[in-house]
Amino acid sequence: MTGKPIAIASDHAGFELKSTLVEELGALGHAVLDLGTGGPDSVDYPDFADALAAALADGRAERGVLVCGSGLGIAMAANRHPGVRAAPCHDETSARLTREHNDANVLALGARLIGVEVAKDCLRTFLDTEFAGGRHQRRVDKLG
Amino acid sequence: MTGKPIAIASDHAGFELKSTLVEELGALGHAVLDLGTGGPDSVDYPDFADALAAALADGRAERGVLVCGSGLGIAMAANRHPGVRAAPCHDETSARLTREHNDANVLALGARLIGVEVAKDCLRTFLDTEFAGGRHQRRVDKLG
Repeated sequence: MTGKPIAIASDHAGFELKSTLVEELGALGHAVLDLGTGGPDSVDYPDFADALAAALADGRAERGVLVCGSGLGIAMAANRHPGVRAAPCHDETSARLTREHNDANVLALGARLIGVEVAKDCLRTFLDTEFAGGRHQRRVDKLG
Repeated sequence: MTGKPIAIASDHAGFELKSTLVEELGALGHAVLDLGTGGPDSVDYPDFADALAAALADGRAERGVLVCGSGLGIAMAANRHPGVRAAPCHDETSARLTREHNDANVLALGARLIGVEVAKDCLRTFLDTEFAGGRHQRRVDKLG
């Protein structure tokens, strides 16, 4: 971890959970780069995935969090971008494994699938777990 | 759904569950295009995601199933490919939502995260659920 902010973005379905996670990141001592959406009006999740991918690509952030209804569509969109490794997680185990094995740099959460305490646990585990390296590095390199 | 086979691929961690799902697909009346891996020896999940993406791109299959330890790394790799919409699902709800909202064409499963009956339920729901279209089509189009 560096001192760079954690980037975060969501669509309308994820807006409320994103707001909670922005507070949680602050409580954990992280600076936050909030890329929207800024309210409950309907938007398209790929636009916000693209905004977060751009923030990682230009170095404004090294890790990010994405939220939509399921976490699945916004992660698909993020993973279109080389260098982004976005993992839709539903519990601490998946958040831990994707850090250890995939060196995931973006946590994707489904606001309609998991509750707020599960989401916070995923976030903390995602931020606290180191990549295991070794044989996993070769596979991450193949992702491009 | 067309009469085209369902493509399926996994790494070593997903090999056993893949074998079970090949049988299940046959029991459900689907032809299966099994792209490996063919045994428990260690392989790299991106290679098998790429093989499945190629099968979708050249029209050998229209839908696919990917299995690795978490379902997360192999889905990241698959989503690098335009036209592939791979969703790591952990229950029927996530499998239903990603068909309805994202028109997902690849189901990704984590052999170390979910049990075999949950995996079979995800598979059946994934295959039986139609895309909802409407406003979701615009977002899918943005995925490319």
